[in-house]
Amino acid sequence: MVRNIRLTIEYDGTRFSGWQRQALGEGLKTIQEEIEKAGKKLFGKKIKLIGSGRTDSGVHAEGQVANFKIDSNLPLFTIKRGLNNHLPKDIAIISVEDVNLRFHARFDAREKLYRYRIVNRDARSPILQRFATFYSYDLDIDVMRKAARYFLGKKDFKSFQARGKKNKNSVRTVKKLRIVENFPVIDIYIQGDGFLYNMVRNIAGTLVDAGRGRIAPEEVKKILSKRHRSSAGHTAPAKGLCLLKVIYKND
Amino acid sequence: MVRNIRLTIEYDGTRFSGWQRQALGEGLKTIQEEIEKAGKKLFGKKIKLIGSGRTDSGVHAEGQVANFKIDSNLPLFTIKRGLNNHLPKDIAIISVEDVNLRFHARFDAREKLYRYRIVNRDARSPILQRFATFYSYDLDIDVMRKAARYFLGKKDFKSFQARGKKNKNSVRTVKKLRIVENFPVIDIYIQGDGFLYNMVRNIAGTLVDAGRGRIAPEEVKKILSKRHRSSAGHTAPAKGLCLLKVIYKND
Repeated sequence: MVRNIRLTIEYDGTRFSGWQRQALGEGLKTIQEEIEKAGKKLFGKKIKLIGSGRTDSGVHAEGQVANFKIDSNLPLFTIKRGLNNHLPKDIAIISVEDVNLRFHARFDAREKLYRYRIVNRDARSPILQRFATFYSYDLDIDVMRKAARYFLGKKDFKSFQARGKKNKNSVRTVKKLRIVENFPVIDIYIQGDGFLYNMVRNIAGTLVDAGRGRIAPEEVKKILSKRHRSSAGHTAPAKGLCLLKVIYKND
Repeated sequence: MVRNIRLTIEYDGTRFSGWQRQALGEGLKTIQEEIEKAGKKLFGKKIKLIGSGRTDSGVHAEGQVANFKIDSNLPLFTIKRGLNNHLPKDIAIISVEDVNLRFHARFDAREKLYRYRIVNRDARSPILQRFATFYSYDLDIDVMRKAARYFLGKKDFKSFQARGKKNKNSVRTVKKLRIVENFPVIDIYIQGDGFLYNMVRNIAGTLVDAGRGRIAPEEVKKILSKRHRSSAGHTAPAKGLCLLKVIYKND
């Protein structure tokens, strides 16, 4: 019987070239490929994984979602345990569900929640070195929060899209943007209906530039209106970014 | 001018054979040695580091304390930056202070606060793999909290001391023992005036055994009275343990 299996996946993205399977011969490891390989070992046949979207090289996830179709009678707990046994330590399947055959992890995703994690003090953090970006200069959280407000709502985020990427439609809606301080950690939570390539990292970098005094909070409005990448702040490094959750219609 | 420098140190203990410098020729890396090497590079002469106490192989710290005496005029921020520049990524000096020449990191330590971190769900956590112990069976937090109460106060902890270690005096005072749940993480915080070798890991293992239903909470009382290691629960793995803070008289 053909089933549609939905996976929730956690990974430490440090040693991977991102989520997406690469063209043949590049020799770089991706999370998608590792899970497809584990699936082949478990089911004895190829699986084709559909992710909710890509994550870049070095980006982490606590709740990436993907689905695949398979003709198999294995119970869910066997699939979960089997995939985890075949996966490397830096990838784990944290939940497995049978879903409607029409479910599509990418097309049906309605919103995503990301966290950008910063260590802000004058010494780097050995414990968070893989999962946070270290900024040694003082960041003013109040200023960052003021700047954050200008990102909320439905806007054209062209200035926050990676150079060279040309999505026809660069309008996205940022639903929530919250900054939580817990010394020495600053977490930026951002939830929206979709993100352009590098958009979260460009927003995080711009917030850091604001917190540092290089960009006035109200300047964000002007940056958005310019619709050009060069007007915004720097791109924050990949390692601070983590996809926490993908939200679907019936969740 | 001879100064006494107090360091606060964070480390990821994964690849180290613990805090303490080893006998010559063992070829295992320790945190103490790495900092002493960094000190030699910075000051051009040997430093002798006194730690608040040892941490075992694989144990982490967010707030280990150590001191050393040095004849140097370098300003504190230069010492901090200099040591960090010479240290590997998994060790960082997070604060540097000039203290009274009589300050001794070990003899003057009054209390220590440790955290034992557990991931409790049916899949391991790639992100916490280095910093938490994975227990896949259901742990009952209420039962763990009931068991925890029996550890509080001044008691003979001989049953929770590593086999083969013979401290004459195995009486210690556990001041606080708190269990905080934040799915899938369970954190055990334990503060006391001193800990026997493996004592925190043996208490954590016993709490896990209680949460799992293998030891009744009130049995802890009996275990303590037996004064023998074999009566208590298992020794929880090193990687879940982190020394958060060392408390001194005038802090």
